[in-house]
Amino acid sequence: MNNETIAAIATPQGVGAIGIIRLSGKDAITLCNKVFRGKNLEAQQSHTIHYGYIVDGEKILDEVMVSIFRAPKSFTTEDVAEISCHGSPFVLEQILHLLLKHSARLAKPGEFSQRAFMNGRINLAQAEAVADIIASENEMQHKVALQQMRGGYAKDLQQLRQQLIDYAALIELELDFGEEDVEFAKREQLIDFISHLQSHIAALVDSFKTGNAIKEGIPVAIIGKPNAGKSTLLNALLNEERAIVSEIAGTTRDSIEDVMHYKGFSFRFIDTAGIRETTDTVEMIGVERALAKARNASVVLYLFDVASTSVEELLSEIKSLNAVDALVIPVANKIDKTTWKGTAPFTFISNMQFISAAQKYNIELLKESLYKLATNNTQLAANNSIVSNIRHYEALVKANEALANAQAGLTNKISGELVAFDLRDSLEHLGSITGEVSSEEVLGSIFSRFCIGK
Amino acid sequence: MNNETIAAIATPQGVGAIGIIRLSGKDAITLCNKVFRGKNLEAQQSHTIHYGYIVDGEKILDEVMVSIFRAPKSFTTEDVAEISCHGSPFVLEQILHLLLKHSARLAKPGEFSQRAFMNGRINLAQAEAVADIIASENEMQHKVALQQMRGGYAKDLQQLRQQLIDYAALIELELDFGEEDVEFAKREQLIDFISHLQSHIAALVDSFKTGNAIKEGIPVAIIGKPNAGKSTLLNALLNEERAIVSEIAGTTRDSIEDVMHYKGFSFRFIDTAGIRETTDTVEMIGVERALAKARNASVVLYLFDVASTSVEELLSEIKSLNAVDALVIPVANKIDKTTWKGTAPFTFISNMQFISAAQKYNIELLKESLYKLATNNTQLAANNSIVSNIRHYEALVKANEALANAQAGLTNKISGELVAFDLRDSLEHLGSITGEVSSEEVLGSIFSRFCIGK
Repeated sequence: MNNETIAAIATPQGVGAIGIIRLSGKDAITLCNKVFRGKNLEAQQSHTIHYGYIVDGEKILDEVMVSIFRAPKSFTTEDVAEISCHGSPFVLEQILHLLLKHSARLAKPGEFSQRAFMNGRINLAQAEAVADIIASENEMQHKVALQQMRGGYAKDLQQLRQQLIDYAALIELELDFGEEDVEFAKREQLIDFISHLQSHIAALVDSFKTGNAIKEGIPVAIIGKPNAGKSTLLNALLNEERAIVSEIAGTTRDSIEDVMHYKGFSFRFIDTAGIRETTDTVEMIGVERALAKARNASVVLYLFDVASTSVEELLSEIKSLNAVDALVIPVANKIDKTTWKGTAPFTFISNMQFISAAQKYNIELLKESLYKLATNNTQLAANNSIVSNIRHYEALVKANEALANAQAGLTNKISGELVAFDLRDSLEHLGSITGEVSSEEVLGSIFSRFCIGK
Repeated sequence: MNNETIAAIATPQGVGAIGIIRLSGKDAITLCNKVFRGKNLEAQQSHTIHYGYIVDGEKILDEVMVSIFRAPKSFTTEDVAEISCHGSPFVLEQILHLLLKHSARLAKPGEFSQRAFMNGRINLAQAEAVADIIASENEMQHKVALQQMRGGYAKDLQQLRQQLIDYAALIELELDFGEEDVEFAKREQLIDFISHLQSHIAALVDSFKTGNAIKEGIPVAIIGKPNAGKSTLLNALLNEERAIVSEIAGTTRDSIEDVMHYKGFSFRFIDTAGIRETTDTVEMIGVERALAKARNASVVLYLFDVASTSVEELLSEIKSLNAVDALVIPVANKIDKTTWKGTAPFTFISNMQFISAAQKYNIELLKESLYKLATNNTQLAANNSIVSNIRHYEALVKANEALANAQAGLTNKISGELVAFDLRDSLEHLGSITGEVSSEEVLGSIFSRFCIGK
């Protein structure tokens, strides 16, 4: 266990009612007590809160409440003190400086979580889930992260990995017997088990498409000719969302440019700078550039002016989009300007949507069809088995490659040594997910992406 | 006491390790318990912390710690629960929504503080000080606010006001005796007391100049001819400050444009947009506009190019600034470009500073002289008697006006009725400071300026 006591501001930057500074380590409570005027914190029980002042000598820095958590009943399993003070950045910095002066060390990003992992309170996948929860912006992201934090697929993997360890150990034991032709690991049983494990992992690998769409948002491109109304549509889609976000005064998050949250999913509109920077009338977007944009999207909204586009024209344009691997939704705009009754000429085209971006007609319907395409496409599963972490995904892919090698070796009855090697390789990749196998370097890179104070 | 239970997010907006939602009111703990899965919070003691989950039916929203404070030992003196969850705006909003669904009401800005005041835990001046502490950005602001929160000058005023109430009561009693020529309030004693009170209040009124400079920052104008190097100087002054502010990674507050913090004071550079929007070479600032700018400043940095300005020219320019009531610091720029040895031609001019904004020569010296002028000018007092709140200042001025009327009345032996009226007038103004006398309207306007969750 690390001997240093670490400290950091744990609340978001900026001004608020409450700010919190967190201390963890062997001396966290002793150290906090040195700058606290009130009770003797060292004499207090775990999970209690104490009123007093933080003082630098005779100088009072703030009126505070200090929460005490005693090892091992804390987030890090170490002694922890949390100072809840007035939410002024100035006050928080002053108190943090004071603690650093009293031999606390400034915590690195994610260091509290790293200690929780190192001290065995949570596994690596759970620590990563904590960061995902904090970063979550919609219901699906949050749900997937929460499941992962509570164990999720990592729990099952740990059990299966344990069985694989047992098989690998038996095969390695056979090797010790050298020339004697012993067989501790029943080959047929092992082949069955590996098949089972492979299909379990394959399902997780498959879920990453969904997980990634949930985590990163579904990339949507809006393309169409100049004057089709692309920027008007973008605003119509985004503005409504912004209104929802700011529903509760004072609780709005910083609005994230060009992301639409709808029914728990995020839709990222890509390359919107191009749409925003040009007013529609003067915009000149080449076919090549439109295709390049569509290529990065999962869904393409192909927008056209319903009054000035013929069915033949539209069909040929949709056809030119066939080259890309995205779902195309043709969107007929400016239906408020049409003179013909109904929308007859285009209705036979599949996925067709009719809107007026300017009048905000059918914008909700368009969102709904985006959502339906997204959810059909992402096999929305309400279970524990969605992988959204790319590190886990890569480890799973490699683990299954190694298992395939082992399986092939067993089928072809090649030497136990090579089979054992492939099994160990697979075990290593599986172990890296929960951190049972991990290198300093990998851990450093994972935790450095966390926020300070976590 | 108010029966509604209020809820709000109490941590700053944005992403962080920890976010807090605060509940206060008769049902705060009961209500929190309804959405909490873990222990029975209602059976827990005050000042304790409990691990569990916030749940919406079967759906888990987050893993949390809940702190319990029981009436009257809480900030509001009501039952209070604080939910400490992961610092994701999404999670915070979800939990807040859930609480609102369970009959909590969204707290208005400052409503927790307002309840603390209404329930008699703090007086109005102390409640205002809490908001000032949160807004404080430098040592002096923080110190003045903290003194006020701990009682400060309001405590003395409350005592003096009590004595004045006694005198006023005696005079009013005399009036009840109508024609009988009684005198319960010894006139000479009363005159002495009013004099004492007047000078006490006058000192507080005087301190407002300091208090206001501390609270609002000292307005500084940088003026000078095109190409004198104004924007370079502004950057030199501000950039160094920014470097200090961002010393500790992750703890920087949002940098406040064009404010320099130095030795506990804030210097606000006014009308810097004019400096920033023009590059120095093309800038054309009229004399009128420069004077108007100087008029809003306490200190004027008059910047000139040392190589291309004659002493006569400089003196006439400084003289033209005499029209304004600001301290002028002449600043000779580009000393690195001069060919003459030393800085002889200008040294006899008072307050003269020699710098190179581009090379950052003597920028620290310039800051120091700004600081010295500011502190000389603001009679830096390390006592409890600095008024920084303009509402208090105005009340004090009016209280003293009423006292002067009463005093004049007493000296001229006018009728007791009029003296009593003036004394009541003065009492009203003094009472408004601590909230002993207050109207719904005034309170509403004070607390609405607080942040949500406080």
